[in-house]
Amino acid sequence: MIYPVIVEVTLREGIADPEGATIERALPALGFTGVTNVRAGKSFRFDVDAQDEASALAQATAMAERLLSNPVIENATARSGASR
Amino acid sequence: MIYPVIVEVTLREGIADPEGATIERALPALGFTGVTNVRAGKSFRFDVDAQDEASALAQATAMAERLLSNPVIENATARSGASR
Repeated sequence: MIYPVIVEVTLREGIADPEGATIERALPALGFTGVTNVRAGKSFRFDVDAQDEASALAQATAMAERLLSNPVIENATARSGASR
Repeated sequence: MIYPVIVEVTLREGIADPEGATIERALPALGFTGVTNVRAGKSFRFDVDAQDEASALAQATAMAERLLSNPVIENATARSGASR
């Protein structure tokens, strides 16, 4: 069966995030106040052909760690993308 | 109160996604088979200081549409990030 999966890749705590910091600095000029801790990351959506959802997520997690993220500076989490 | 929010920015249907296509082509060489429809996107996490969660999400949606995405080619969705 085909299972839709979402992988989110985020920078680890303590790793500098210049993109997030730039967004945060730009917000007040656009009228958005009270927004803090902006962190930028990546998301990937794909379909996995697997026996069941658990093995689809296991394959997605392995992909996320080996191909989609840099484990030195990034965390990757895979979850079901069915409830888009 | 402070509400954590996640914004996901994805390319609209029909918009070419070279990053996703490149990932998809690389997968078989790494031993991952049965993965299709890879689409790359961006995610942003931040904290919004607002009266309640609904207004926090409304502000995040406005930010997502005005600052974090290009509405011509991208969709942006905001959701609560509490259940990380």
